[in-house]
Amino acid sequence: MKRILSSLALCLAIAGAVNAQELANFSFGGRGMKPIVSPEIQNDSVTFRLKADYATVVKLSGSWMPNPWGGTIDMHRGENNVWSVKIPLPSPEIYTYNFVVDGVAVNDPQNILVQRDGTRFLPMLLVPGERTENYGEATKHGTVSHPWYSSKILGMDRRLTVYTPYGYEANPKKKYPVLYLLHGAGGDEEAWISMGRAAQILDNLIEKGLAEPMIVVMPNGNPNQAAARTLNIPEKPMDWRDPAFRDAYVKSLCTEIVPFIEKNFRAIAKPSSRAIAGLSMGGGHTISASILYPEMFDYICPLSAAGSATPEQIATLKKAGVKLYFLACGNTDFLFQGAEEMHAKLTEQGLEHEYFVSDGGHVWANWRLYLNTFAQKLFK
Amino acid sequence: MKRILSSLALCLAIAGAVNAQELANFSFGGRGMKPIVSPEIQNDSVTFRLKADYATVVKLSGSWMPNPWGGTIDMHRGENNVWSVKIPLPSPEIYTYNFVVDGVAVNDPQNILVQRDGTRFLPMLLVPGERTENYGEATKHGTVSHPWYSSKILGMDRRLTVYTPYGYEANPKKKYPVLYLLHGAGGDEEAWISMGRAAQILDNLIEKGLAEPMIVVMPNGNPNQAAARTLNIPEKPMDWRDPAFRDAYVKSLCTEIVPFIEKNFRAIAKPSSRAIAGLSMGGGHTISASILYPEMFDYICPLSAAGSATPEQIATLKKAGVKLYFLACGNTDFLFQGAEEMHAKLTEQGLEHEYFVSDGGHVWANWRLYLNTFAQKLFK
Repeated sequence: MKRILSSLALCLAIAGAVNAQELANFSFGGRGMKPIVSPEIQNDSVTFRLKADYATVVKLSGSWMPNPWGGTIDMHRGENNVWSVKIPLPSPEIYTYNFVVDGVAVNDPQNILVQRDGTRFLPMLLVPGERTENYGEATKHGTVSHPWYSSKILGMDRRLTVYTPYGYEANPKKKYPVLYLLHGAGGDEEAWISMGRAAQILDNLIEKGLAEPMIVVMPNGNPNQAAARTLNIPEKPMDWRDPAFRDAYVKSLCTEIVPFIEKNFRAIAKPSSRAIAGLSMGGGHTISASILYPEMFDYICPLSAAGSATPEQIATLKKAGVKLYFLACGNTDFLFQGAEEMHAKLTEQGLEHEYFVSDGGHVWANWRLYLNTFAQKLFK
Repeated sequence: MKRILSSLALCLAIAGAVNAQELANFSFGGRGMKPIVSPEIQNDSVTFRLKADYATVVKLSGSWMPNPWGGTIDMHRGENNVWSVKIPLPSPEIYTYNFVVDGVAVNDPQNILVQRDGTRFLPMLLVPGERTENYGEATKHGTVSHPWYSSKILGMDRRLTVYTPYGYEANPKKKYPVLYLLHGAGGDEEAWISMGRAAQILDNLIEKGLAEPMIVVMPNGNPNQAAARTLNIPEKPMDWRDPAFRDAYVKSLCTEIVPFIEKNFRAIAKPSSRAIAGLSMGGGHTISASILYPEMFDYICPLSAAGSATPEQIATLKKAGVKLYFLACGNTDFLFQGAEEMHAKLTEQGLEHEYFVSDGGHVWANWRLYLNTFAQKLFK
């Protein structure tokens, strides 16, 4: 048996490729092979390792680098052709990274923690600290589900992601407020769960008593898509130049998704128990929803928003009543000027609001921070 | 703007590494860069492509190869350093594959379809045909959810995957039968959804009227795990040599999970509406459950099972009543002899059963085929 396992380990090493069948949880400790650990956080450093027998150049690229589009760090060949590099631990945050082997991006085979950003699956590094204390797993978990709602407006069944808080099943009479949480261009109904760590953030905040137990609904904001592309469902050809197109999704959200949720989940169906928040394009959707349906949501949170409103629209919204208007943007975001202008308009019209400016740009690090911040202010 | 996009595309090409933020659904058509398509099925062939500027040797490894642990096919460098290979289309099935760049396994960056097999995320190739007609997306979709049940027996909250069929939300009075579907060693509560395509198979069978609408419950069969390792929850140290350990999960399944499902989902709570099926270790769990709780399930389906039963246990089960005993195994499976023996014992004891022998070994291709086969026989 030992010989079989050793031969197997050798095969694996030679091929560098496994097509295991229900075997991946086993570890084959072959002759003289120590398990490779990557990434390994030790005190103030983190070490990345990759076995690459025949590579000429191996580099590391990570989202903590100043230029995440191109920067790389050289890795060095060590014993048994394990390449490694030890770097100072980046500040507490969630990062994605990959290796670059002779010019080709490679995921870390030792790291089972993966985030999906649109079309790419990337290894994840969570650096512990105060900033990230709500990004890891809590003790008590809510339920994440993927129901489909039927959209007459968009002409298809469409997939939603829905988070119900811990205790939802055990308290069958209890009703909950609902946060509608919208992604940006390039994202889909899984973006806030994967990149945004929405389930972990809500689990932790609720467990600590910092946020009200709430349902969180994460729809797909691309009106031509039924669901994330990972499901391989053909996309519907739609004319982006059609002015009706832009608001079709917002209309489906407010007149189809909200009723679907309030029918199929134990949701409190009133404006004071409805919040809407969204990042980038989803921030635009958030502003549009507040303009087109000013009486629907009492909590409105545009984040790094691609969108704006006229003074008249803000006046109408103010009249309809707003319990929290949380406007957030990074100070180096390419949309920061728009946030500044929106802030000025809201001030001019006397719509009380919180203007939350963070360091940094148009990145998930900011959107996780915003969710972790405004979720504590909802439904109170 | 055009210049910015071109520079960006150049950066991407140089780095071979993207840490996009909500940008991955956009395609940057840079100067002279044609989009790379991979894999591309054309008639009787399939072409794989990978851009690798500085690689020396690029190979392809796929689960259709006779030796999936080690076999590879050479790829050839073409224009713009796009390596490619065109191979005869393998027979209809779902395969996983990867590239091997200078000895290192690399996922296909062009392929967003990914399956997770334990600790690895692998690009997926679905070859269309009669055998796979229920493995793609149906028109109408059930809901997949991930509730957590509290296990006193195992001392932790544990994650389940639950499929409810299309129409479950729209028919709030209707109750459904339940299939408990168990994974093998190395798998977890996502194995049947990801590798097994359980949601697609059930969606298609139900849409075509070939299977009864049913709930499918996929628990985590590793008694030391709260959930899949992707959630990074510390595993509970347990003594595998403890004889109590082996059956602890089966006890939790039958006395904790079944009641949890029948309380929180609209399940028909009687033996004639309960089925249990499992592969490999989960086949062993299936047999154990039928022995320890002979009156609980009327439908029993051990698949490539690591487990057996005594004549007395079979006699007890027969007395309790069985509507379907579906025993399946591949004829080159290393557990085939065990299936033959179980078949003989069932025959000896006069327990009417279906013995389904397929070509091939201990692989997901068989387990998808088995699910697609026995799901049509349940609850009828």
